[in-house]
Amino acid sequence: MEKYYISYNKIHNIIKSLSEQITESGFDFDYMVAIGTGGFIPARMMKTFINKPILTVGIAYYDLNDNIMDKPNIIQWIDDADKKLEGKKILLVDEVDDSRATIGYCLEKLLNHKPKEIAVVVVHNKEKEKRGLIPDEIKKYFAGETLGDQWVCYPWDADDAYEHDKKC
Amino acid sequence: MEKYYISYNKIHNIIKSLSEQITESGFDFDYMVAIGTGGFIPARMMKTFINKPILTVGIAYYDLNDNIMDKPNIIQWIDDADKKLEGKKILLVDEVDDSRATIGYCLEKLLNHKPKEIAVVVVHNKEKEKRGLIPDEIKKYFAGETLGDQWVCYPWDADDAYEHDKKC
Repeated sequence: MEKYYISYNKIHNIIKSLSEQITESGFDFDYMVAIGTGGFIPARMMKTFINKPILTVGIAYYDLNDNIMDKPNIIQWIDDADKKLEGKKILLVDEVDDSRATIGYCLEKLLNHKPKEIAVVVVHNKEKEKRGLIPDEIKKYFAGETLGDQWVCYPWDADDAYEHDKKC
Repeated sequence: MEKYYISYNKIHNIIKSLSEQITESGFDFDYMVAIGTGGFIPARMMKTFINKPILTVGIAYYDLNDNIMDKPNIIQWIDDADKKLEGKKILLVDEVDDSRATIGYCLEKLLNHKPKEIAVVVVHNKEKEKRGLIPDEIKKYFAGETLGDQWVCYPWDADDAYEHDKKC
């Protein structure tokens, strides 16, 4: 599979551009919800441009030996989620919309807490067959870059960040 | 106050070195606990080198208008924390040990969940008078760089990441 290397600096500036798009869309949210662990870095970058509190959820489809699992493993959910999220506007943040399984799963679970609205932002969307669904309630979706079915090499997965940069 | 600019790539490689130190120390932990929002990016970087689940806590001493508050505002705590943490080894992750107030506060709260051991890792420790305390139960503390009372300019706070890099 073709590899696509991307640097921290490029992702940071993509997040800046996405922040401007979200602000211009009029979507004024109460919380970011970062999907861990891929959404942690994009969400923290975005906080510089749109200063809202970040909540996190931890979801893993892989065990610690990198074996894929049938069901997601919930590492962490939001404490007092009903109290925090009911009637609120949420921006769900992840690094990549690949199979859509994780994002679809999180959206379904978040909708149970009766938020007013949820929008989705990802650094990358892959144009491919999706296993997960974005529910009809979700009207706003922002992607920084649209890719094919490439293998995205994120800088945080690099052994050496400077060596990674040379491949970008 | 003197400003110290640091890039994403440099922080990534500091985290690699810290991960090696933690592994060599024999501290084999069950969870990272990232203090949000400063610890989100270092914790995700560290997961590449030490593949453990990341839990997060969200603590703010500043309100959304950047006014400092007397008491910390808990944005998020760990759901089912007693069940998750009792008898477990935890690595607490933050970007900077400045006044030590946030780290001291989190350590006290985490100790209530009866973990077996907690160690602390920060990208930067500032050698200055500390307002917070590291409780006697904490025996392991790792800092990537030790600074004076400089103003650290983290890349995630930059308006443009490439311009920030030029100042590093």
